[in-house]
Amino acid sequence: KPHGHKRFVIDADPGVDDTHAIMMALAHPNVEVAGITIVGGNCDIDQIVLNAVRVLKTCNRLDIPVYRGSAVSLLGEIPQKSEYHMLDGLGDVPLFRRRAMRIRRMLVWCNQSMPCKPLLRLSQWYRGDLTLIALGPLTNIAMAIRLDAEFGKRLKHCYIMGGNTEGQGNITTSAEFNFHHDPEAASIVLNELQCPITQVGWEVTLRNMISWDWFDEACKADTREARFLRLIHDKPEAFCKKQEWGFIPCDQTAMAVALDDGVATGWHSEYATVELNGKYTRGQMVIDFRKVLKREHNCRMVTKIDLDRLRSCMGMAM
Amino acid sequence: KPHGHKRFVIDADPGVDDTHAIMMALAHPNVEVAGITIVGGNCDIDQIVLNAVRVLKTCNRLDIPVYRGSAVSLLGEIPQKSEYHMLDGLGDVPLFRRRAMRIRRMLVWCNQSMPCKPLLRLSQWYRGDLTLIALGPLTNIAMAIRLDAEFGKRLKHCYIMGGNTEGQGNITTSAEFNFHHDPEAASIVLNELQCPITQVGWEVTLRNMISWDWFDEACKADTREARFLRLIHDKPEAFCKKQEWGFIPCDQTAMAVALDDGVATGWHSEYATVELNGKYTRGQMVIDFRKVLKREHNCRMVTKIDLDRLRSCMGMAM
Amino acid sequence: KPHGHKRFVIDADPGVDDTHAIMMALAHPNVEVAGITIVGGNCDIDQIVLNAVRVLKTCNRLDIPVYRGSAVSLLGEIPQKSEYHMLDGLGDVPLFRRRAMRIRRMLVWCNQSMPCKPLLRLSQWYRGDLTLIALGPLTNIAMAIRLDAEFGKRLKHCYIMGGNTEGQGNITTSAEFNFHHDPEAASIVLNELQCPITQVGWEVTLRNMISWDWFDEACKADTREARFLRLIHDKPEAFCKKQEWGFIPCDQTAMAVALDDGVATGWHSEYATVELNGKYTRGQMVIDFRKVLKREHNCRMVTKIDLDRLRSCMGMAM
Amino acid sequence: KPHGHKRFVIDADPGVDDTHAIMMALAHPNVEVAGITIVGGNCDIDQIVLNAVRVLKTCNRLDIPVYRGSAVSLLGEIPQKSEYHMLDGLGDVPLFRRRAMRIRRMLVWCNQSMPCKPLLRLSQWYRGDLTLIALGPLTNIAMAIRLDAEFGKRLKHCYIMGGNTEGQGNITTSAEFNFHHDPEAASIVLNELQCPITQVGWEVTLRNMISWDWFDEACKADTREARFLRLIHDKPEAFCKKQEWGFIPCDQTAMAVALDDGVATGWHSEYATVELNGKYTRGQMVIDFRKVLKREHNCRMVTKIDLDRLRSCMGMAM
Ligand SMILES: [Ca+2]
Ligand SMILES: [Ca+2]
Ligand SMILES: [Ca+2]
Ligand SMILES: [Ca+2]
Repeated sequence: KPHGHKRFVIDADPGVDDTHAIMMALAHPNVEVAGITIVGGNCDIDQIVLNAVRVLKTCNRLDIPVYRGSAVSLLGEIPQKSEYHMLDGLGDVPLFRRRAMRIRRMLVWCNQSMPCKPLLRLSQWYRGDLTLIALGPLTNIAMAIRLDAEFGKRLKHCYIMGGNTEGQGNITTSAEFNFHHDPEAASIVLNELQCPITQVGWEVTLRNMISWDWFDEACKADTREARFLRLIHDKPEAFCKKQEWGFIPCDQTAMAVALDDGVATGWHSEYATVELNGKYTRGQMVIDFRKVLKREHNCRMVTKIDLDRLRSCMGMAM
Repeated sequence: KPHGHKRFVIDADPGVDDTHAIMMALAHPNVEVAGITIVGGNCDIDQIVLNAVRVLKTCNRLDIPVYRGSAVSLLGEIPQKSEYHMLDGLGDVPLFRRRAMRIRRMLVWCNQSMPCKPLLRLSQWYRGDLTLIALGPLTNIAMAIRLDAEFGKRLKHCYIMGGNTEGQGNITTSAEFNFHHDPEAASIVLNELQCPITQVGWEVTLRNMISWDWFDEACKADTREARFLRLIHDKPEAFCKKQEWGFIPCDQTAMAVALDDGVATGWHSEYATVELNGKYTRGQMVIDFRKVLKREHNCRMVTKIDLDRLRSCMGMAM
Repeated sequence: KPHGHKRFVIDADPGVDDTHAIMMALAHPNVEVAGITIVGGNCDIDQIVLNAVRVLKTCNRLDIPVYRGSAVSLLGEIPQKSEYHMLDGLGDVPLFRRRAMRIRRMLVWCNQSMPCKPLLRLSQWYRGDLTLIALGPLTNIAMAIRLDAEFGKRLKHCYIMGGNTEGQGNITTSAEFNFHHDPEAASIVLNELQCPITQVGWEVTLRNMISWDWFDEACKADTREARFLRLIHDKPEAFCKKQEWGFIPCDQTAMAVALDDGVATGWHSEYATVELNGKYTRGQMVIDFRKVLKREHNCRMVTKIDLDRLRSCMGMAM
Repeated sequence: KPHGHKRFVIDADPGVDDTHAIMMALAHPNVEVAGITIVGGNCDIDQIVLNAVRVLKTCNRLDIPVYRGSAVSLLGEIPQKSEYHMLDGLGDVPLFRRRAMRIRRMLVWCNQSMPCKPLLRLSQWYRGDLTLIALGPLTNIAMAIRLDAEFGKRLKHCYIMGGNTEGQGNITTSAEFNFHHDPEAASIVLNELQCPITQVGWEVTLRNMISWDWFDEACKADTREARFLRLIHDKPEAFCKKQEWGFIPCDQTAMAVALDDGVATGWHSEYATVELNGKYTRGQMVIDFRKVLKREHNCRMVTKIDLDRLRSCMGMAM
């Protein structure tokens, strides 16, 4: 095992930004992806399991297992399609028929096990040497905790894309998408995971937007991966430009922080939890800056990003 | 399989009233108890798993498997000890040392499987022919639903002790103990179980109290079971009498309704769900009597009890 | 002052049932109505002030002052028109032009004072000898309390139509209309009024419905009042019969309980408050039957009605 | 009326920082203070009415009327004493007996009118030419709105110290003191005041702390005012230094922003409201940065302060 080797399990809802983040991990020389678990979020679970397999096929990495996780949130909420990710969650790019057939055959394997079981099993196989990257709602992880209270203790670290640190929302006034889709799961993970957590939230990614120009340029690389990323971003890019939105790399930033310790250049560690009630604030992350709850800190929240290193991590996927 | 044969799986948190209810099922000639799953509620999970095994030992039915379920509620709430059930949940009656050792050996088996797995497996083995009797918080059942959306469709019926139909609480102003301990689970079960549900709530049992005199008399039967029930009720009875409370047979009534179709003599079927927010009403059952939510009814709520038949069912355990 | 003499101030949102209730008070030989304060509820405030004046004109009692109170709830909620009361809140019966003009002239007087001021002033004039009958949302009364903490101490008694005692709602699953329109006000009144409160809620009136046949018969009396009640009930009666609803005399029952001590034949006194949060239960009355909050009782809730005496009180208005 | 003349009514709960802010207004050559209305907040209402009179006495400005407002929040919450302001809200500095007697005589006048009435009257006298400075919980102002919907339309501007813009709390995890004491009032004021609102919240004052050294130096001025400010800050300063807290001039900053247009150097205007539910977030300000509620902006929130100008405004009081 070379120095600096990292073993990841990625829990995601791909999604164009999850896809890019997954490809960043696949491209990194020191990282081994032990498995990808899928969670309902950006899109219907069947669709995003297929999306994950499709990404692996594109990267020629069908050796990595994909597992179907929870279709709905802990309380049974069904994922809403997002305009950004398009109807199929992956930019509505049609699959060629032959490739489609092969991919569908793969899917049978993904659904063989009970949701959460793969997360538990991987944490047992690679006890103490597994880093969890959470890029979607935290349903799978919360259920793993509930089924096995020791789950988190067997992890080395957990990186979370989700939540917010300044009360700004992107799906409601006050909540970020991943936490809003399953606030109960987010609360369970923050309060009970019992391994070091690094969180990358909405405001820090918003403050570290990337220009579409950079992305367009980076996609010109002459690789299958770059062409694929170009293709799936065509519609999302058009949609964003119409709204005059920049390129906000949420999942990519969390992945970059996990891949390269130099990406995060500022953070604070506090006790953080999630508002479960609230007319406006359901799903908002709540941070106890003034220690009024007298709880141990449970979360390291990234507040500053080295944009150059982020871009360089993102470019590795192309 | 004789006519009228019923196969039960009992999900419980024993508890003196769960114990009595379990013994009612064991004593019934037409009922086969396929397994007992334990859920955190009246007491610490390890203690109540032990309690369940102890009850089976007393009834000479160690052939029935006991499975350890969830220790805490869906959101991680830890059970509170109740004054009624006493510290060990079973009237604080000491175990003889030799019996204790044998029972502890049994316990190893109870903890072998992941929580909820036994419920799922039993529902597959006895597809369409399994009745679920829920006598504790609904955590195990909610998790079974979340792990396998088809779980409930394989059940014949589910009887629930829990909730309330007139806004009266027994643990808070407005909520009944089992629903209050895990409101999220109760909400998931009512909304997603997808099999016929019969609910026995707080008010109907309160209106159908039994006198301690009847219980004292019934316990005089010359059987090991009667002596055991007498023993474990000594302290709870003293506690109740000090408060001037009658004998309120919650779990026993739900079990009797499941054992004998003649016990419930009145009910209404409505859409019912659970309040998850609320300063006073968290965990309260909410019933849409006037169809303002325009939802299909999902729950048959028992409103009237034939007290003679209830007592006769209860007496079978002695 | 004759024996049994009572002095009322009526706070109402007329409303066909408020109208009937007001007319019951006007007809009662022992009752003096010192004033009517209007509160937004069943309909727009301007409309219901006009309705109140119209009722007084019909009864030849324009000597009784009508005061415009709060148009909206404490939190600014605007009243919703109800299908039962029709668009003008009084059965959509057109006013004759000449009568209309005279009534409109009266209205100028009703709007001269700050909301709540008349309630405060009347409570000072008739200190200790004023009974408050609340037939609408409790906004005016809550504001009177907040402007003068001693307000309630100067009242003899307060009768409230509103709330529920068994968690049944008529506007949402769990809340009664008057409490739901202004839950904060209802909470303030129950917790801070500091005079004896008698409450008549939704379930007790629902259990004591009256037949439309009785009402139709009673309206045949050859009086201006009976003809007026007949007229304003034409559309509401048609609406109810289409829904197969009986005649549910909410405001009338509360008024009857206030007029005749023999109407209420059963009640319990407990600590009662109002749920202000809750997805389903906002506005529900919460009753602490088991004293878990350890508070003094603040409310006498009527549970049984002598139907004959109720009908006889109602008939006095005709 | 000289150019730049401003007429203020100050609604406050003095409090050492309210006191300093009031003295800043009294010292400003272009500002006329038309009245001071007191609201329960930092301390018991009787105490803080006395405090206000005492401040005016110190500044030789007993010509300015002080009015007693609401003792409790809209929902009846009683103010909590704060450790910072000390037991009497003004640093626990004893009053000389003779001055005390004269001050107590003044107090009779302060309590003559109904709460809110003075705010309404002043807004009528100085229609269009009155600026409201709100330094405490917003109870008085919310009640003025509810008693007279046109109240805010008669104001020129309202400056509010209260709330937060990034989800950081100072009294709970997520709420600022003034908004937390009366969230309902804060919500009513933001949503219904109908005049331009400038808000100075917790985070902006936290980012613009002042050193105790500066304050200590400034208090050395040889004036009665400086000596008074020195005296009342003795205990609060000791308390803060023990906690290693700087000097956070909340009310002073809001007052400075109102006095001098150059103090605020950055802001955003959005639709803002207040969370009324929420386990952690009750009283938190909610800002709709992404226009998901599609509401008109109602609040200008100050985000940047010119510290030199702030200090210079603060120094004028000495
Ligand atoms: Ca994602
Ligand atoms: Ca039980
Ligand atoms: Ca009414
Ligand atoms: Ca203040």
